[in-house]
Amino acid sequence: MPAGATVGLENAGAAGPWLLVCEHASNAFPDPWGDLGLSPEAQEAHIAWDPGALPVARGLAQALDAPLVAGSVSRLIYDLNRPPHVPGAMTERSEVWDIPGNRNLTPAARLARTEAVYLPFHAAVSAQVAGALAQGRHPVLATIHSFTPTWHGRPRSVELGIIHDADPALALAVVEAARRLTGLRVALNDPYSAADGVTHSLRLHATPYGLPNVMIEIRNDLIATPETQAEMAAKLARVLDEALAAIHPREGVA
Amino acid sequence: MPAGATVGLENAGAAGPWLLVCEHASNAFPDPWGDLGLSPEAQEAHIAWDPGALPVARGLAQALDAPLVAGSVSRLIYDLNRPPHVPGAMTERSEVWDIPGNRNLTPAARLARTEAVYLPFHAAVSAQVAGALAQGRHPVLATIHSFTPTWHGRPRSVELGIIHDADPALALAVVEAARRLTGLRVALNDPYSAADGVTHSLRLHATPYGLPNVMIEIRNDLIATPETQAEMAAKLARVLDEALAAIHPREGVA
Repeated sequence: MPAGATVGLENAGAAGPWLLVCEHASNAFPDPWGDLGLSPEAQEAHIAWDPGALPVARGLAQALDAPLVAGSVSRLIYDLNRPPHVPGAMTERSEVWDIPGNRNLTPAARLARTEAVYLPFHAAVSAQVAGALAQGRHPVLATIHSFTPTWHGRPRSVELGIIHDADPALALAVVEAARRLTGLRVALNDPYSAADGVTHSLRLHATPYGLPNVMIEIRNDLIATPETQAEMAAKLARVLDEALAAIHPREGVA
Repeated sequence: MPAGATVGLENAGAAGPWLLVCEHASNAFPDPWGDLGLSPEAQEAHIAWDPGALPVARGLAQALDAPLVAGSVSRLIYDLNRPPHVPGAMTERSEVWDIPGNRNLTPAARLARTEAVYLPFHAAVSAQVAGALAQGRHPVLATIHSFTPTWHGRPRSVELGIIHDADPALALAVVEAARRLTGLRVALNDPYSAADGVTHSLRLHATPYGLPNVMIEIRNDLIATPETQAEMAAKLARVLDEALAAIHPREGVA
């Protein structure tokens, strides 16, 4: 395993209030896992990563002066937003695709992926959180995702999904600001919610420290080009700024 | 910072259901921090560590076939059961003692201790938890502490304190088993409770994964010699075994 192959830390010294995480940034299939027997089409599909999420997260990191921790292997090798014991962490099937290289993984293989991918990624997020706290800053966590416009043949009308875990305060403020500032169809806890097991990163890194947190899901057809990715990042940066100002008046910077 | 100086991982390959953590195992004051200006008496006192906790934890690790992650510097350098932003993480005062070397720590000094002590310790615990989960085991977390029989001049009558965080199931079972199997004066959430901020390790490592968890506090005058430490470990091993059997009948091994 090449050092750092599974963690991309960008903007490490940034001093803004946000900490950005993008677990499904990459559709890379590096050794020792390789392509898991997937077709080139499957490797490009939304099952392998969140298309468009990384460029949007990078735009946000720039606009908000925020550190960004991003995965750098496909979620089919290890889904960084899942704990190691759930089937979805190294899934055998995703939507309509089988994942041959994930069939009947041994405990040793699951352990090896957990140690190579999951642990270093979350250690990098922990280091950002603990480092900020040690220096007197209270980071605000946002995880950046995209979702497919069609799921099992059914179109999804929601364009921006805002998901919370135990503490809904920031998510509610983001929904309010997004409805006010964007023309997007915004939904709370849609197309997923914490009940679907998608808030693992929030539970690991924000809840134990009482930090405000939110998961953001963008429909991927809206962020398919560099231009629309940049536009979405600019829009969301304003939304996040105003949402933070609404819940923490003194931390929101105009 | 010598590699591994702040984490003691013992019994790493153990296959039993328990994972033991002993944050306040050590009263070592290594470089680069040194003795923080403390008298030899203060360095030996309960403010520097949990006297007796490590030998009891080691006895439990043996009896329960459990891995044990133990701190290896004084809690006055960094209290591993506290997040980096609270004053108690690198406290300026403890009970009746001032800690000269912790006065007016700069953000850089707080960051350095966090990176050298807090992050590697909790990474080691995370690795135990995630590694077990990856292999299909669901570890049960117990943190082992001791407390002083006299606090600000007032004697404490409780002998064994059992503390829970959000999920009380295991703690209640431990209280029940301890009252049944030992002659000790057992109390729930005494001399501390989650409201005192003492359940950080449980919140970091058990709650996000839904793992049963409990914090155990032993009055330190009861575990002051190798003999009483071994006796206490044997007693508590039986208590923990029975408590686990009570909440998870299939995992409890007679």
